[in-house]
Amino acid sequence: MRRDRVRALLDEVAAGRLAVGAALEKLDDAPLEELGFATIDQHRALRQGYPEVVFGQGKEPAHVEAICARLAARGDGFLVTRAAPDVQTALVAAWPAAEVNGTARTVLLRAESPKARRDGRPVAIVTAGTSDLPVGEEAAVTLDAMGHEVMRLTDVGVAGIHRVLAKRDVLHGAAVVIVIAGMDGALPSVVGGLVRCPVIAVPTSVGYGAAFGGLAPLLTMLNSCAAGVTVCNIDNGFGAAMAAARILDT
Amino acid sequence: MRRDRVRALLDEVAAGRLAVGAALEKLDDAPLEELGFATIDQHRALRQGYPEVVFGQGKEPAHVEAICARLAARGDGFLVTRAAPDVQTALVAAWPAAEVNGTARTVLLRAESPKARRDGRPVAIVTAGTSDLPVGEEAAVTLDAMGHEVMRLTDVGVAGIHRVLAKRDVLHGAAVVIVIAGMDGALPSVVGGLVRCPVIAVPTSVGYGAAFGGLAPLLTMLNSCAAGVTVCNIDNGFGAAMAAARILDT
Amino acid sequence: MRRDRVRALLDEVAAGRLAVGAALEKLDDAPLEELGFATIDQHRALRQGYPEVVFGQGKEPAHVEAICARLAARGDGFLVTRAAPDVQTALVAAWPAAEVNGTARTVLLRAESPKARRDGRPVAIVTAGTSDLPVGEEAAVTLDAMGHEVMRLTDVGVAGIHRVLAKRDVLHGAAVVIVIAGMDGALPSVVGGLVRCPVIAVPTSVGYGAAFGGLAPLLTMLNSCAAGVTVCNIDNGFGAAMAAARILDT
Amino acid sequence: MRRDRVRALLDEVAAGRLAVGAALEKLDDAPLEELGFATIDQHRALRQGYPEVVFGQGKEPAHVEAICARLAARGDGFLVTRAAPDVQTALVAAWPAAEVNGTARTVLLRAESPKARRDGRPVAIVTAGTSDLPVGEEAAVTLDAMGHEVMRLTDVGVAGIHRVLAKRDVLHGAAVVIVIAGMDGALPSVVGGLVRCPVIAVPTSVGYGAAFGGLAPLLTMLNSCAAGVTVCNIDNGFGAAMAAARILDT
Amino acid sequence: MRRDRVRALLDEVAAGRLAVGAALEKLDDAPLEELGFATIDQHRALRQGYPEVVFGQGKEPAHVEAICARLAARGDGFLVTRAAPDVQTALVAAWPAAEVNGTARTVLLRAESPKARRDGRPVAIVTAGTSDLPVGEEAAVTLDAMGHEVMRLTDVGVAGIHRVLAKRDVLHGAAVVIVIAGMDGALPSVVGGLVRCPVIAVPTSVGYGAAFGGLAPLLTMLNSCAAGVTVCNIDNGFGAAMAAARILDT
Amino acid sequence: MRRDRVRALLDEVAAGRLAVGAALEKLDDAPLEELGFATIDQHRALRQGYPEVVFGQGKEPAHVEAICARLAARGDGFLVTRAAPDVQTALVAAWPAAEVNGTARTVLLRAESPKARRDGRPVAIVTAGTSDLPVGEEAAVTLDAMGHEVMRLTDVGVAGIHRVLAKRDVLHGAAVVIVIAGMDGALPSVVGGLVRCPVIAVPTSVGYGAAFGGLAPLLTMLNSCAAGVTVCNIDNGFGAAMAAARILDT
Amino acid sequence: MRRDRVRALLDEVAAGRLAVGAALEKLDDAPLEELGFATIDQHRALRQGYPEVVFGQGKEPAHVEAICARLAARGDGFLVTRAAPDVQTALVAAWPAAEVNGTARTVLLRAESPKARRDGRPVAIVTAGTSDLPVGEEAAVTLDAMGHEVMRLTDVGVAGIHRVLAKRDVLHGAAVVIVIAGMDGALPSVVGGLVRCPVIAVPTSVGYGAAFGGLAPLLTMLNSCAAGVTVCNIDNGFGAAMAAARILDT
Amino acid sequence: MRRDRVRALLDEVAAGRLAVGAALEKLDDAPLEELGFATIDQHRALRQGYPEVVFGQGKEPAHVEAICARLAARGDGFLVTRAAPDVQTALVAAWPAAEVNGTARTVLLRAESPKARRDGRPVAIVTAGTSDLPVGEEAAVTLDAMGHEVMRLTDVGVAGIHRVLAKRDVLHGAAVVIVIAGMDGALPSVVGGLVRCPVIAVPTSVGYGAAFGGLAPLLTMLNSCAAGVTVCNIDNGFGAAMAAARILDT
Repeated sequence: MRRDRVRALLDEVAAGRLAVGAALEKLDDAPLEELGFATIDQHRALRQGYPEVVFGQGKEPAHVEAICARLAARGDGFLVTRAAPDVQTALVAAWPAAEVNGTARTVLLRAESPKARRDGRPVAIVTAGTSDLPVGEEAAVTLDAMGHEVMRLTDVGVAGIHRVLAKRDVLHGAAVVIVIAGMDGALPSVVGGLVRCPVIAVPTSVGYGAAFGGLAPLLTMLNSCAAGVTVCNIDNGFGAAMAAARILDT
Repeated sequence: MRRDRVRALLDEVAAGRLAVGAALEKLDDAPLEELGFATIDQHRALRQGYPEVVFGQGKEPAHVEAICARLAARGDGFLVTRAAPDVQTALVAAWPAAEVNGTARTVLLRAESPKARRDGRPVAIVTAGTSDLPVGEEAAVTLDAMGHEVMRLTDVGVAGIHRVLAKRDVLHGAAVVIVIAGMDGALPSVVGGLVRCPVIAVPTSVGYGAAFGGLAPLLTMLNSCAAGVTVCNIDNGFGAAMAAARILDT
Repeated sequence: MRRDRVRALLDEVAAGRLAVGAALEKLDDAPLEELGFATIDQHRALRQGYPEVVFGQGKEPAHVEAICARLAARGDGFLVTRAAPDVQTALVAAWPAAEVNGTARTVLLRAESPKARRDGRPVAIVTAGTSDLPVGEEAAVTLDAMGHEVMRLTDVGVAGIHRVLAKRDVLHGAAVVIVIAGMDGALPSVVGGLVRCPVIAVPTSVGYGAAFGGLAPLLTMLNSCAAGVTVCNIDNGFGAAMAAARILDT
Repeated sequence: MRRDRVRALLDEVAAGRLAVGAALEKLDDAPLEELGFATIDQHRALRQGYPEVVFGQGKEPAHVEAICARLAARGDGFLVTRAAPDVQTALVAAWPAAEVNGTARTVLLRAESPKARRDGRPVAIVTAGTSDLPVGEEAAVTLDAMGHEVMRLTDVGVAGIHRVLAKRDVLHGAAVVIVIAGMDGALPSVVGGLVRCPVIAVPTSVGYGAAFGGLAPLLTMLNSCAAGVTVCNIDNGFGAAMAAARILDT
Repeated sequence: MRRDRVRALLDEVAAGRLAVGAALEKLDDAPLEELGFATIDQHRALRQGYPEVVFGQGKEPAHVEAICARLAARGDGFLVTRAAPDVQTALVAAWPAAEVNGTARTVLLRAESPKARRDGRPVAIVTAGTSDLPVGEEAAVTLDAMGHEVMRLTDVGVAGIHRVLAKRDVLHGAAVVIVIAGMDGALPSVVGGLVRCPVIAVPTSVGYGAAFGGLAPLLTMLNSCAAGVTVCNIDNGFGAAMAAARILDT
Repeated sequence: MRRDRVRALLDEVAAGRLAVGAALEKLDDAPLEELGFATIDQHRALRQGYPEVVFGQGKEPAHVEAICARLAARGDGFLVTRAAPDVQTALVAAWPAAEVNGTARTVLLRAESPKARRDGRPVAIVTAGTSDLPVGEEAAVTLDAMGHEVMRLTDVGVAGIHRVLAKRDVLHGAAVVIVIAGMDGALPSVVGGLVRCPVIAVPTSVGYGAAFGGLAPLLTMLNSCAAGVTVCNIDNGFGAAMAAARILDT
Repeated sequence: MRRDRVRALLDEVAAGRLAVGAALEKLDDAPLEELGFATIDQHRALRQGYPEVVFGQGKEPAHVEAICARLAARGDGFLVTRAAPDVQTALVAAWPAAEVNGTARTVLLRAESPKARRDGRPVAIVTAGTSDLPVGEEAAVTLDAMGHEVMRLTDVGVAGIHRVLAKRDVLHGAAVVIVIAGMDGALPSVVGGLVRCPVIAVPTSVGYGAAFGGLAPLLTMLNSCAAGVTVCNIDNGFGAAMAAARILDT
Repeated sequence: MRRDRVRALLDEVAAGRLAVGAALEKLDDAPLEELGFATIDQHRALRQGYPEVVFGQGKEPAHVEAICARLAARGDGFLVTRAAPDVQTALVAAWPAAEVNGTARTVLLRAESPKARRDGRPVAIVTAGTSDLPVGEEAAVTLDAMGHEVMRLTDVGVAGIHRVLAKRDVLHGAAVVIVIAGMDGALPSVVGGLVRCPVIAVPTSVGYGAAFGGLAPLLTMLNSCAAGVTVCNIDNGFGAAMAAARILDT
């Protein structure tokens, strides 16, 4: 089966016994599958270790479903993010085993033979306020789909600094910390000063007025005075999870 | 002498025994003095409790000196902010008793009979980094000129959160806290959550790139998740001091 | 009862007989209460003198209700701001004694034994136009919940300058003035030049075109030529009230 | 002489006895004069009532001088705005009768037989602060060059509102009011509410931080709550004067 | 009757026989009328020559109706701009003689004894495209309410420059030209170069993408290379008409 | 018939045997047709080679239909872009032969005797993602209406660079390449480095957060490090097609 | 010699007798030359028809000289844009035959055997004002270096619309029109409506205040109501010339 | 010696045998050292694994030197970034062993007994153009100071996509890839699609016009269509290196 071959090749590449180009050539199928409205990148798993994730926003339900059908047919399962309610409904109707997370707006069909969950330290997902939960959940579902453990710290913003300080030892146990905050976006600077591990900051569009749709926390995080904090796009919980996966998978 | 009359009238107004309009009429001098290039507001002390402060930026040294001459002639002394080096030199030449603070870019000539320094809790001036010092010093000089005590906490930004936490009890002793920060501007949110007293936040133009000349910390502070933190213009240490003086003088 | 203990400790702290840290230790309950989707800061009243206010925007009605239940269970009552109609309905159904202010979009359940209203000068809430009323009412309700007197001046924008000048003596009687304006945001500069007391400016999103959702009055206020005017986020009537409470409570 | 012919034709057009197109044809000279680096519009006086004014910024001194030579050769004199010091020096060397206004950065050579100054109400030029003077002077020089009377009110910003209120009757005597302000840009809203005549607002780049080079007062003025106030570009004293001239000349 | 007295006083003021302050004192009624949610400026007609116009956007229909009732009770009629459909319906139900212009979103109740329409040149309202018509109609209705003649030129944008050139002689007959354009906002620069009379430019929010809600034409017009063009807020047809009325009424 | 005369004149102009002005005079009909709400430019075909295209956004269906009726009456057919569903319905009801493209939001009525399709290389329309299709289809329909061949490459964004590299030879066969991308807008830089022919870049509003409605890809494309790539407005597929037609038709 | 081989291969590719990939393989030299601080793309001429042009801004003179030495060694000559005075001096010292254009800030060393200048219609370079000349000259020098004829129209901005209308027939003779304007950036919309050929718009940083360093004309041009006008980066005369070369060379 | 104790404690913490708080208590020295103008965080090495790095920009040379003296006295060496020439001179005079990198603007004094360089895959530093080198070198020096291997790929921007494709296998050998680009900022999207390892993108201020000081590549990178790319502040090579160190050290 194709997925087993891909996985074996990935192991060869990871072990340095095979160049990526050579591995790609060993796969006899086409690198691209053209659907007219979409071009599926069949080699992504080989190049990057995970199959394409479908960004649902702005796509018609029928298009999303068609793309998912191709991905599911390979046994890889699929993950759809930013799935509007009608997309969620359509996908669950077609694949009853698919799992919907309403807060995260995701639909996940697990791969038929998922890779074994690795042992090791979890990824901490830290949200500053209750309203930041959808972004946190998008990150959590994505990491789960990639086979990683997640640990949640919720509503620990800096206005009550003892809330996050109380969790200091928990944070020190994480492999990566994803910090999600809207409004002033100050939490990653504090967390970045507390821990040694990688800190990925995600601004959210939570707020009003001079938050300007997430611009305020975005700028805060880019200017973080804690050295080595990196930043994702506004509300991009998925991207933060993928960045964590890049760290953990290499 | 005029200054004594003003002070006596101010006491009457403060005690509710005299309306402001009536007090203004009791002064027989003109409310405005026109210099051609400037119109001095002679009644400001009566309306607001302090004489005009001269904003030196963008003014020719000769103009600044002429305005100061009028203010000094009344015995009130003067305070010039944003004084460029040539302005500093000109003023000290004319008034050898004037005090220059090079970091703050201020020139202060004390009033001949300054009002007694009040007892009471000081204003804490908290700066996030060494580069924020000029703004902090501008605030300190202004408060000093207004007759208020100042307490400085320097370089206690959130990337090393224990630095400000170590000062918690000191902060609780302040009447007002002025928090000055550039880059991520996160410090006022933390301080605002620690103390009950008024917190005035001042963003600075310290930083580079996406700090956009102070826009980033300005937005951070306007969106502070600590309730009741108010904000001044970028680099406006003078304004923060005046806001503190409004609080302490009423 | 817990609230009485908190109040007694607050008095000790205010009197300088007890450090905040020591006071916090005397409370035997946990400083945090974790609800999964929220982390309630049980020590805020002790640190800052008022319990947590619930920001209703972007929260699901069930979440708001659950948080309010915890707050109400301590006898502190609660205040919810930015409450959407469905949140208002849910809260009044659960707590019939709760008071809704439709213009302000607030729901207030008063504490069982509210602290005595202080005597003293009121907070003046000055709005430039009729459309600014929702922000003014949010400030008024918040100050009422904190135990402060409020005085309203409505629709006195600078295009008819005699409207605010006619109220000059009324303004001189205020302890703090909150000035709320959209469009050109010019009113705080005029008021700031008329009174000695603290002036807190709140820009609103009222306007169109080059008002850019409140950016125009925000910039106007940050650049106010009246010294010592401080600024809150766009439409943040709650924040202005909390800033006034910080001034009055210390 | 050409200038007399132009003036006679302008009178015909103004009286409705001649169409502009017909008037243009009666002039036998070329409508354009091409200098390689500039194309002089010889018909502008006929179409619009005033000859070309030279915008000096960004032009090489030699280019400015060459253009002025063509304009001066027709007896029309010239006006150069935004003239850098080296341009000022070059022009005065070439035309000793030219008048330099250092504050306004203008060089004016009067026409050989200037049109008679009209009687009537002057244009009031109101500046909020001393630092706004260069913009005000640019407007004053331009109006003078166009043959209009000017009246100056200096340093009457809204932080001391009585300064402008004291001038109310003077303002009512103006034909047009040009209001020039940086920082909060609030003055035109107040003036616009006081007078019936046309009010032209000019934001200046005076200020710092959130003034963003004049953006703040520009937005303030565009959102003025005084109806019928119109706005020019930042620092554009020349444009305001030309707008006033359009009003007075038609 | 009050309106006759106001008109007689206005004539005295205009003739220079009476100061505004003195005229205001001759009116025995209160200068302000407070409705709780609004403060009506009863002296505006005397100061500025026209009664208050009601800006309908963001106001509740009941508030608009109550304000209109006060204005109508004086016989002055009223003009409501930015009237939403429900406001339009409510006002026509209460005052069947009121005139609705659906494109302009205005409701106009004419004064009982309107001032005589002046003779003289009309105001030209020039729109660049069909989608700019609502702004043009708002200007036209306002000028009509103020007693001025209007002339319309529609859909004459610069992409087909001959359309506006073909109207050159018509434009020369106008007393004032209001030029309304979205997208590139280039039309006022061309018109400003063609005519001598005052040109008022109004950017509109017509367009998409990099038009940024009218920012693009706003900047274009502020930077117009035709000297003396002044600018109003985006979509502010009312303001342009008021600026024209200021010019024509003085 | 008029259209045959226009076409014959166009051929004369193209061959250099006739000046445009002279050709315009040979047409005896009026250059403009005024409908009250629109001014149709009847000479555009002669000046520019194609009749007016109707921009449907923001126009009332009745207005669009009236304009189309005039265009159709000349036998030229019409193209309406940004046609809302109700506009689409109205036009198809009136002209059953009109072709609707729902993705592109266009309605096309072909000319009665369309010009012969030219032989030659097609225009390549390259879209980075599935969500960019509406912009791509708007370009495709417009080019089709102008008589040009189109070739589509869909969903070949740079995150899987081999997708576009696999099409390199296809791209080399294009006369012009239109590259359409949202989010990072990086595709035109890559394509611009691969081909020699003209590359027209179109940013789209696809994305979220820091895409700021298309601002991000717009800036990317304007700063493209591939020399000679030019840019259209956000989502402006029509404009890109017209730019391509200008290249191919001259 | 290498350049002859490249030229022969280019002819093969242009004629469709050779694929680009095959052509690249026929060259035996390395596709890249690494200098440590730069990687020269030796195949660009083959892929795109012109060698690398060196962007001088921000590069050290020694680096520029080293890159030029490699390019010159192949007989291709070089073109350096944005060359600061010290770079100009260094290059002319090393290659006395190099031609400096001070206005354009370019240094050009012609190829040893330049390709024959093609016959055909010139590229028109139209500048709105004298201050736009540096950008126009950068475009002119670049086109000259690529072997194309140039025609200049200078200082023909829309404020005197007859200046560009007088050149209408000249414009109709151009193969491509590059329109360069600062301030309001309105000229491309007018020119785009006059001619059928490709129109490339270049905004410049000429202006002040609300021109915001070229943002204003950039937005104007992106929103041009003349269909099919495309836009380059601010001040990017080089890019406009390269876009024209792409059109003329294919 | 203190440094040995810190290192031993760090090993305990890393091994999970000691909590951070407990480790901090085992150090008997003060956690903070106050210099008046700076507060040195003595525990940072313990909390985060590296001592404080001094950000030189905006600090007076004497202040920088004083801070470095304290750091050097502990045997840790120091790293100063953004060191202006006078700072570089002062530091080398005081510590002749300090190494200056002029391109990077850094001064590095190595620790007396640096930790052993780890074996393993290097960090790849990929710059798009020659002008991006200063940012790349700042990253390289920082990583070197932290004990990590660096590999440089220079001037491989996407306009010549084969330059980076030619390095694909080299990139696959990296532990982390830092991608640095100005102008269009497109390179990280391409690299992010090629490799599996963590990709850290750094926008630079290289460019002009619509690059807006690095805003353009910043937005590009935040919107990267390659999943899991994270972003640092403009020109922040130091931050990218620290982010890489966080990944490699945990």
